Amino acid sequence: MATIARPVLRVLGIDPGTATTGFGVIEGQAGAGGELRLLDYGAIRTSPADPMPDRLVDLYASLRELLTLHRPQAMAVEELFFSSNVTTALTVGQARGVILLAGAQAGIPIAEYKPMQVKLAITGYGGADKRQVQEMLRLTLQLTEVPRPDDAADAIAIALCHLQTARMVHGA
Amino acid sequence: MATIARPVLRVLGIDPGTATTGFGVIEGQAGAGGELRLLDYGAIRTSPADPMPDRLVDLYASLRELLTLHRPQAMAVEELFFSSNVTTALTVGQARGVILLAGAQAGIPIAEYKPMQVKLAITGYGGADKRQVQEMLRLTLQLTEVPRPDDAADAIAIALCHLQTARMVHGA
Repeated sequence: MATIARPVLRVLGIDPGTATTGFGVIEGQAGAGGELRLLDYGAIRTSPADPMPDRLVDLYASLRELLTLHRPQAMAVEELFFSSNVTTALTVGQARGVILLAGAQAGIPIAEYKPMQVKLAITGYGGADKRQVQEMLRLTLQLTEVPRPDDAADAIAIALCHLQTARMVHGA
Repeated sequence: MATIARPVLRVLGIDPGTATTGFGVIEGQAGAGGELRLLDYGAIRTSPADPMPDRLVDLYASLRELLTLHRPQAMAVEELFFSSNVTTALTVGQARGVILLAGAQAGIPIAEYKPMQVKLAITGYGGADKRQVQEMLRLTLQLTEVPRPDDAADAIAIALCHLQTARMVHGA
């Protein structure tokens, strides 16, 4: 019996924020099934005591470092959806701007997913709550504990969502 | 009679936007009176046909080019004030993020001014309309015509506002 070899895809997931930006790096076959590996995850924090331009410099430098270290083939970023807070949208937009810049400068495709798309991809249900998503992440990635902090777990979920979506596109 | 020598300040004014970012470079004494020179102005445009990350790369590269070319001692950026549109706030925030990043990486102080502060500094009246601001700009900078496009005129006004404010701070 023949075996089907599918390319392995390494994805950097990002949950953007000014104070805390979560990140997660996942590797897996861009096809149905196969092993999934969580290579790295965590949160980039910038100091609220620093002026915003300096915080954006720190965030940009950290992103560049992650891109150089892991050399992902794709970046997946949460597409923010705000119902009301304009000031938050503006400041998160600023953080998002330097994140998209760093990704584009690294020459990799950047995908954006709405929170509902992420929930749907991970749990099969777009209305899943944070705990359900995190527990499913833990099971899928065969971890003993749910990744912390929440921003990192969110970023891993976004990366996994991209991998699942890529699987649907490229899979048999 | 003694003469008072005040340092000359070169200011890069920026009116941030995703499609069009206006810029203006003004040089003048950081004290009352003295000559004012408009060194450069215009608009950085990115293509709506390109994906947002690529447009941010273009905007960032243009900003770096202006900073290298003119070596301003300060950057002045319009502090955006939105009453309602969250999507606009997010996308303009993204453009603003890479602008603040480029400025901070150039190691210069970045000042932010609200539209009302700019109007007040240029015309003496915070409720002035666009035409009044542009006409006052033309007279102050001794130009034969109002600078075009509007985004460039706005950026020049922001740079001039910073110079006027610096004058108030440093002036006798």
